[in-house]
Order: sequence, then structure tokens, then C-alpha cells
Amino acid sequence: MNILQKQRLSFRALIPKGIKKLREVSLLQIPNQHKENSILESLFPLTYSQGCYHFVPSPTKISGKLRLGVFFSGGQAPGGHNVIAGIWDALQEIDPESMLCGFLGGPSGVVDAKYRELRQIDIDQVRNMGGFDLLGSGRTKIETPEQISAAMETCQHLRLDGLVVIGGDDSNTNAAILAEAFLAKGCETKVIGIPKTIDGDLQSEAIEISFGFDSACKTYSELIGNIGRDALSAKKYYHFIKLMGRSASHIALECAIATHPNLCFIGEERKGLSLIVQEIADLVEKRSHKGKEYGIILIPEGLIEFMPEMKILLDELNRGEISSSSQAVFESLPEKIQKQLTQEKDPHGNVALSQIETEVLLIEKVKEELKKRTSYKGKFSPVPHFFGYEGRACYPSNFDATYCTVLGRLAALAVRDGATGVIASVQHLTDPVENWDFRLIPLVEMMHLEERKGKQKPVIKKTLVDLEGASFRWFAARRKEWELADDYQNPGPIQFFGGADLTDTVPEQLRLRLLRMP
Amino acid sequence: MNILQKQRLSFRALIPKGIKKLREVSLLQIPNQHKENSILESLFPLTYSQGCYHFVPSPTKISGKLRLGVFFSGGQAPGGHNVIAGIWDALQEIDPESMLCGFLGGPSGVVDAKYRELRQIDIDQVRNMGGFDLLGSGRTKIETPEQISAAMETCQHLRLDGLVVIGGDDSNTNAAILAEAFLAKGCETKVIGIPKTIDGDLQSEAIEISFGFDSACKTYSELIGNIGRDALSAKKYYHFIKLMGRSASHIALECAIATHPNLCFIGEERKGLSLIVQEIADLVEKRSHKGKEYGIILIPEGLIEFMPEMKILLDELNRGEISSSSQAVFESLPEKIQKQLTQEKDPHGNVALSQIETEVLLIEKVKEELKKRTSYKGKFSPVPHFFGYEGRACYPSNFDATYCTVLGRLAALAVRDGATGVIASVQHLTDPVENWDFRLIPLVEMMHLEERKGKQKPVIKKTLVDLEGASFRWFAARRKEWELADDYQNPGPIQFFGGADLTDTVPEQLRLRLLRMP
Repeated sequence: MNILQKQRLSFRALIPKGIKKLREVSLLQIPNQHKENSILESLFPLTYSQGCYHFVPSPTKISGKLRLGVFFSGGQAPGGHNVIAGIWDALQEIDPESMLCGFLGGPSGVVDAKYRELRQIDIDQVRNMGGFDLLGSGRTKIETPEQISAAMETCQHLRLDGLVVIGGDDSNTNAAILAEAFLAKGCETKVIGIPKTIDGDLQSEAIEISFGFDSACKTYSELIGNIGRDALSAKKYYHFIKLMGRSASHIALECAIATHPNLCFIGEERKGLSLIVQEIADLVEKRSHKGKEYGIILIPEGLIEFMPEMKILLDELNRGEISSSSQAVFESLPEKIQKQLTQEKDPHGNVALSQIETEVLLIEKVKEELKKRTSYKGKFSPVPHFFGYEGRACYPSNFDATYCTVLGRLAALAVRDGATGVIASVQHLTDPVENWDFRLIPLVEMMHLEERKGKQKPVIKKTLVDLEGASFRWFAARRKEWELADDYQNPGPIQFFGGADLTDTVPEQLRLRLLRMP
Repeated sequence: MNILQKQRLSFRALIPKGIKKLREVSLLQIPNQHKENSILESLFPLTYSQGCYHFVPSPTKISGKLRLGVFFSGGQAPGGHNVIAGIWDALQEIDPESMLCGFLGGPSGVVDAKYRELRQIDIDQVRNMGGFDLLGSGRTKIETPEQISAAMETCQHLRLDGLVVIGGDDSNTNAAILAEAFLAKGCETKVIGIPKTIDGDLQSEAIEISFGFDSACKTYSELIGNIGRDALSAKKYYHFIKLMGRSASHIALECAIATHPNLCFIGEERKGLSLIVQEIADLVEKRSHKGKEYGIILIPEGLIEFMPEMKILLDELNRGEISSSSQAVFESLPEKIQKQLTQEKDPHGNVALSQIETEVLLIEKVKEELKKRTSYKGKFSPVPHFFGYEGRACYPSNFDATYCTVLGRLAALAVRDGATGVIASVQHLTDPVENWDFRLIPLVEMMHLEERKGKQKPVIKKTLVDLEGASFRWFAARRKEWELADDYQNPGPIQFFGGADLTDTVPEQLRLRLLRMP
């Protein structure tokens, strides 16, 4: 075992005072205030009207051992193991006879009854470690009546008081459906959601940020900072750095705020391909006139889907009917990208978006554009990068390690006190940990209806970057200056020791967003 | 300025006791013991016979201010700024009236007299920072008689007592030539080399390791460790990770020792392409039979040049005459690689090796091979990565920060005491810093003769991975086990605070190599 691993295994997250002593805290339900939505009400008749829960200092009347199940759903996010450690610690405190059962390989572990009972030694091996390897993960959903019945059977067979779902927007939508179905069928198992995703798109007034976002962005920012310092010394490459995050550009924005690249595109601005290419070519030309033949450009993975003409092309390719304008767009693309658009299909037969190298697309188009410009005589040497897997399973930062431990603790408390169909939420994350506050938010409250295949489906909407929000505005106010000034910042590797100002920082966006609240 | 940057700027490297008080240490020349080489002697008549210098506790008789110049040469390596800080600190101690002049943009800065005098504030801004951005760097050599004359003129105009060359094997060869030429022409400027390169190929009995290797490898190992943890959780990708290091595979070996991948190829084993493809396909198949459809494979950047059939093909492509056996090899390559071999040329008209995506070559060939195997029914999802720029300019580890500060100090002492044509060397790097020992090694001693364009040229040979050495043997004894066992290690991000066992670790190879010495 390496030394950092050993040291991190012995790190213990601070527990906020509000939930320090579990016997002295109880749930208090506040009547719900959400707008009426008759369709949602008809879909969730039993959980629709429940309110938000607060944790209040009041001796609990509930005691006795608990039996809990937990699983990971979807892509990894640093801190997942700490959610489980938080549940474990709380169960030990509530009643050491309690049982925690881990379902293997994601949601399918519940359906197929693949699980193992966790022991202290399991927890001791993964606390503050990245990855989801204690249980594995998966992307199956528990959706069909058969799957739901099978899941219920597993929960009943194991006599589970609660099932904790560690997942993103889809998995939490799923958790709400399960909670409702279990209640309807008289299954005692409560279902509690935990907001996970490095993408940062599971955030709202209720959820300040999903866990994992902080650690992943800090790892990517370390690398971008290093590359910036390299560019500034070598002075000869344009680094096109694509960052994970398909549906929203939060990761790119967070990394831009931390590292000050020359350009960072935010998908939500919905710029077209040709405008983006023009902007990059303009940058390269302007910098070349200043003798600077290098730069740093950040590209969110999902950028291509936000480009209006590409979005139309993608939709038409998926439908198999190409309009003449889309045909022209297609023909303007580099051969390599044309192949990726037509040859790679996802399991649903759609264009496999994850296979499209947007960074290469932009590089090739910018090369073409620069060749056309007689005003440009520089040397353009682009280098593509893609960061994703490098940060999804890193050691969680102190922020994520602590946040996740608290989320796990809240989930255990929720089950103890009988809440279901709720997601654990920590408030005031920029305050000292001691003072964090907590809620259980009804998942139905976070839902809206979307038409999918002609049907109204309840979903938790992915939160896009808010172009009126504090973070984007902070970035937008500075980006012009960054184009030429080389104000590259190098935040360096995540530090676990040293002063709290170094080790316990919160995500930049959280700081900026909350700074502006009254 | 971010918090880590602020904290690192105030970090001060420990100074070994042997060179703590500069007034109490002097150079002592030990008669040289190198084998006679009449060609080398004829090329370096003035510096050939000098011996190695030790630093001994003896009050110095030399005093007075010094005037030094310094430049970076070639690719960046973490710690470069600390060499300059080390020189600066020593000059301040020797005589605060001393002058330190930084040449801009590499060796050409000396030829073209582009420089700036450094001040305390410059040093204060870069101490313990990565990159070479204080001065920039370049790859020009000072070779032709005109260049040498111009360089000498600059040094004489600035009345430099010494010129410090921070560079790799080529730059240090160049330093030896300059030292000899300056002596021959009666120029007073001493020339001192500093062993720099992340590649680790500038090492020998005299030079335990070049600076920068430690920090770069630790950064790459952080990422490989994260990806390993990811693979273990996601269980669905084969990560093909190419690592910088063209001429030798030290970086890949170091990272393998730190992270325990399923496979790591070492170029120096000189395996052919088809054998390598077979080995990977065998791994994938064996793991698939165990239900493991994921893995981590490390590939040194220079692997392709070590493959016997590819080496012949490359040589023939460069000469423009393709034999029929090479034609067959060429035709067996994926189209993309064929294009890279024929379309991209380096400035000398040769195949641009840096443009060849060896990781993609291997992925495509393994795909082909797996399709042929009826015994394999798994799902092979490969993901390519290339790490280089991510680690060349990172914050130097404590090891590199301290090592470099000491190297700078040695260079200043060398100039003070009149040595020239030598490289600064620190011995016993695995001992506590306090006890490190020092030498100035005559550069000529590190040289041998190589035929280049029909002429015998003196060069410092790049040191390849020693297949009989302790590091390779340690790796070779374990790699079979790593293939199936998933013994992935995650060393995590470089830590600067916490216990010395965490922050002050030395490169794994150094530890292994020196462990086995009597």
C-alpha cells in the first residue's frame, strides 16, 4: 500500500454539529409548497404531496437496528466510497447490529439479487479512496414492471428498511419511481437518492452541487495548469483540451475559472461551428501578430450537440433523412469526422456522440480557415487532449470526502425516520463544515415532464450552465482579457495536508454563486 | 495567485551540510582515470585531461563578485527554475554584488545576445514553480564556428565568469565543445552543465538521475493510477497509455513500477510489432475468459523505433528505398498509420516520429488479431491516451526542487573555483538531503564517439533501460502476476505537505537501483 493511500485511509471527515449525535436529531416535515401538477400527481399519488424534511435537534424516539442496501449507478465520481462509509458509520452509531448490503454492478444488482453484506474491513479499505470498485457500477435502469417487481422481491427478501441510490439525474428519477412503486405495493423499503455526477448538471436550489464535481475538476485543472505552464515555456503549441461533460459545460466552465485559458467554449451559448472556428482562427491570428504561436483552448465534450447546424445534422442522421442544408454541413466536415458520424452507432442506432473527436474537428477546420487568411503568416501547431477517465476515479478532495460522508449519514437518518422518495441535500456548503445544514428533498419536487416517444415522462432535468448566473458572468467578464494576456493559472495537484485554506477549498462555481447571494 | 503557488513560493529546499557554508568549501581535483581515447583527446586537447572535482571542507581563498549567465535548452523539466534559484542564492552568499544574466529562448539567446539581468524579484516569482517560462527555452545548438564566436562575443561583452547550460545529453555535449573552444580562444567564461531531462536517459555512474524525471513520472503515475481505479470500477475499457520518452523507456518503466499495469512494454526489449500485438491479444483473451474486459497497458513513446521490422521500415522510408519485406510490413499497417509514415516529415525530411500514434497502431492491430481468434468472444473497447505535456511543467516534487537548488549551487561554486567543461553531479540521492555528496564530472569523461554523416562525432550517449539492471529486473519479476491480478496502485497526486515519507520520496528506480548496491 502506498503512503498516500495509507494516510488517506485514516482521514476522518469532520461531522457538522447538526448531525453529530444521531440520537439527538429528528426529521421534521415542512408542508410542500410546489406548484400543482396534475400529471405528476397522477404518476406519484403517494409521494407527490410529501414536503421537504429538516433535521432538528430533538431526541429521536426511533431506535433499533436497521437493514440497508446501497448501490452505485452510472459513471464514477470521487467520493462514492465515502457515501457508503457515511452510511456505515451512522448505522454503527444507530445500532451496531444493523446490516449494510452492497448491490454489485449497479442497479442490476438489485434486480438480479447480486449483493454482499459489507463489513467493517470493507469500509476500512475504501474510505477516502476514489472509484466505485467496492461494488462496481452499471447503467441498467429499474424501469419495467418486471424489473421493479424483481427489485422489490430482493428488498423484501433481505428485509431492507432502506435502499440508497447513488446516482445522477436518471438514477434519481428512477429512485422516485421505485419509492412510489414500493409504497403502492406495500413494500417497507424506503428509497433514498444521493446526488452524484462529476458533470455538475445535477444542481438546483435544492442541490448546491453533486458530489465528485470538485475532485474531477481539480484534477483536470491541475493538468490544464501544467499544460499552460508548458505552453508558456515552449511557446509553440496550441493545446485543444476537450473535457468530459456531455450534456452541460459545467466542468469546462469550472476549469476555465480555475486556470484562465485563452479560450473556453461554453456549449450553452449555442454558437455555430463556423462562428467557433472563426473565433479560434481570430485568436490564433491576433496572437501570432503579437509573436505568440501558442495557446490553451478548452472544449466541453458536449459542444458539438449545442452547435445549431450540427444538432440538426445529428438529428437528421439519426432519423436517416438528410436535408440539403445538412448535406452541405456534412460535406464541410473533415473526412475523419464524417466517418465518425456515419460509421459509429450507439446501442440505440444513433450517432455515437462519444466517438466524435470535437477537438480534432475544430483543429482541422481552424487549419483550413487559417490557410485561407492571407493576413496570417504564423505557424499553427495544434495538440489535441481529452481528459475524462483521468479524473473520474481520483482520490476525493477533502470537500468531496466530507460532503459524501455527510450525505451517507443523511441517508441512514432518512431511513431511520421513515422518509422515502427523497434525495439527501446539504446546504451552505461554502460555510465551515461545522455549520452545514441539511434537508431531504422530495424527488418529485425536482421533476418535470418531458415528451419521450410520444409519452409524458417525469424526469429530473439536467441543469445547464446558466448564462445569467454568477459563474458564467464572472468568466464572461474576464475572458476577453485572457485571450491575449496569458494569465494562465496553475492550481497544482490536490493537496490533502497543510492549511485548511489549501486542502478544504470548495468548487469555484459554488464560491462565486454563493458569494452573490444576499 | 492561488494558495498552493503562494505556499510553494515560500518553500526553501534543505541544503546538504557539505555545501551549506560556501566560504568553508573548496574544489579538489582528483586526477582522471578515464581510458585513453586519442580521438577524444585530439578534439578536446585542453579539457581532456582534467579530473573529477570533489567539494572538500576547506576555507576558500577565492572571493569577490561573480558574473554568471544561464539558459534552458530543449524540453521542459520540473525544477529548472530552482537551478536558477540555487545559482542566485549561492551568488548572494558569495558576494551580493554578483550578477546573474538569463539568456532568452534557449541557446540562441547567447548567440544573438538576447538576455536580461535577473533580480531578486524574478527569483521570488519562480522558485519551486514548474516550466521554463522565466527565460523560455529552445533547441538551437551552438555548433558552427560562427555561432561559437558569437556566443563567445556575448560572454566577453558581458564579462561572464561562467555560463550554466541546463540541458540534456545534446546540450551537455554542446557545453563541452563550448568549454573547449572558449579555453582555446582565451575566453575566461567557464561552462558548466546541469543534467536535465524528464526522459531519464541522462544517467550513468556519475549522474544518478537527471532532474525533472521524478516530478514528471509522479504526475503520469497519478493519472495512470486514477485510470486504473476507473478501469476497475467501470470494468469495460482497455486503456492504452502512451508515455513521453522517445529514446529510452525509463518513464514507462518508472510508471509501471509505481502503478502495476497489466502490461508495460519496454522498448529496449526490442520486441517486434507482431509479437507485441500477440502479447496484448493474449492478455485480452485470457482476461476475457476470466470475465475481465478491461485493462491498463503502458506504451513508451519510442516503442516503434525499437521494433526491429519497424526500425528497418523507418530507415528505408527515410532513405527512400523500400525493400519488399518492408513493403509487406507497411501494407500490414492501418491506413491511418501509413499516412502518418508517409505524409508527415520532420525538418530533416525524415519520418516525423512524434506524429506516429503508436497507441492507435497497437489498438488497430489488436482489433484485427482478436477478430481472427475464434477462441475469443469478448468485447474489446480500447481507449487511447498520451501523457507528455501534462507532466513536463508541473510543480516540481520536493525531490526535484531540492535536487535542482543544489545543482544550481554546485554550478555557482564550480565557476567561483574555476572549473569548466564539467557537469554538476549529486551523489547518494537516496540518502537524507543533509548527507548528499557532490562532484563536478568532466563532460569529456561521459563522451564516446559516434559516426554521424561519415564523421566521428563526440557525443554523450543516451542511457537506455538496462535489461540487467535492478529496476527492470524488479519489474520483470512481477509483470506476469500483474497481467491477471489487477494489482493496480494509485500513488495519487504529488503531496507537498505532511510527513517526509509522503513528500520527500525519491524516484522508484533510484531506490531500487541503489538498494542493490553493496
